Amino acid sequence: MGTGAVGSAIASKLAALGHEVTMGSRTAANERAAQWAAAAGAGAAHGTFAEAAARAELVFNCTGGEVSLDALQAAGAANLAGKVLVDVSNGLDFSQGRPPNLTVCNTTSIGEQIQQAFPDARVVKALNTVNHAVMVDPGRLAGPHNVFICGDDAAAKAAVVELLASFGWPRDAVIDLGGIAAARGPEMYVPLWLRLMGAVGGAEFNIAVVRPPAP
Amino acid sequence: MGTGAVGSAIASKLAALGHEVTMGSRTAANERAAQWAAAAGAGAAHGTFAEAAARAELVFNCTGGEVSLDALQAAGAANLAGKVLVDVSNGLDFSQGRPPNLTVCNTTSIGEQIQQAFPDARVVKALNTVNHAVMVDPGRLAGPHNVFICGDDAAAKAAVVELLASFGWPRDAVIDLGGIAAARGPEMYVPLWLRLMGAVGGAEFNIAVVRPPAP
Repeated sequence: MGTGAVGSAIASKLAALGHEVTMGSRTAANERAAQWAAAAGAGAAHGTFAEAAARAELVFNCTGGEVSLDALQAAGAANLAGKVLVDVSNGLDFSQGRPPNLTVCNTTSIGEQIQQAFPDARVVKALNTVNHAVMVDPGRLAGPHNVFICGDDAAAKAAVVELLASFGWPRDAVIDLGGIAAARGPEMYVPLWLRLMGAVGGAEFNIAVVRPPAP
Repeated sequence: MGTGAVGSAIASKLAALGHEVTMGSRTAANERAAQWAAAAGAGAAHGTFAEAAARAELVFNCTGGEVSLDALQAAGAANLAGKVLVDVSNGLDFSQGRPPNLTVCNTTSIGEQIQQAFPDARVVKALNTVNHAVMVDPGRLAGPHNVFICGDDAAAKAAVVELLASFGWPRDAVIDLGGIAAARGPEMYVPLWLRLMGAVGGAEFNIAVVRPPAP
């Protein structure tokens, strides 16, 4: 779900790995989705959010967090029920200028709001802490770095770890932060990410968790 | 300013480096401050926030962010004017349980609120993203890791970089995020830090910013 840089990167990676992918968008005739599907070849399709969700075993929410609940309502609760729903979104509010504020934070998060609105979906927050290029090609950075997952469904998290491994993320690079309420952590990291982007001069970076030396 | 684990760690490190240190607290007879000063030896003293600030060339705010404005009012604007004020604080709200929420975030930060309330102080946000032991002994972790500074006064930031270097932080480990409004970034990282503490099983860790390999 989503036709922007994140949706395109995830969809292309999944298609390259041999998965059947439907890029979902608000309308059936979305031009970017149609172009993506034509270029991505066999197994690639496009359709409405509802069509994409209905066909899918696993759904990536790559819409902007500020519109994700609307987009998922358009997808339809019945089409999401029982499915792993990987929430990659960040809710950014540009109304006060740049860098943006978050649309929600502190006492809730987009990930939690999605899980509450769609209790039969198996929501896993993941990948919202890195740029789209790093999401699907973590080896482009120099040295180990980490990605975070959280969610209330252990089997769904395990499935996401396997998917991340297929993207190139070493399994030991994936840090499980706990239940979906922990999504507040990676979502609230984004204001630091936005300022680091300025400080390091680009969006292709990530953080590694550094611990004491092994005893 | 502050007699907790953070204030004690910073005060002890400064004293060990040969600085004259006054540990400030709300009352002149604070037992922990008196014990610290007695144990820390020559050059170590204790007193009220106002006494400590009046004597200081440079002030560390190691009070809890939720009470920092009150503590700094007690210190007195005149005693802070023209001085570098290193704000190490985090505003934690435990009223909803653990992990705590932040008292302020998103559209403001403790660092900004302090700068606004004390316009003649030269506020630099620093070190709030690591545990007190890591603050003053960054070499205890395995491999390079980063610390963030921000503030509106370039000379004040440069002075803090030198102080951090004396604590053991390599100068190239210190990332300048910009003006004091950037304090939202490191302050809003704390909810992720709190969940990482659970995931990694302890408070002694930090993050390193990992970039693409040099061309």
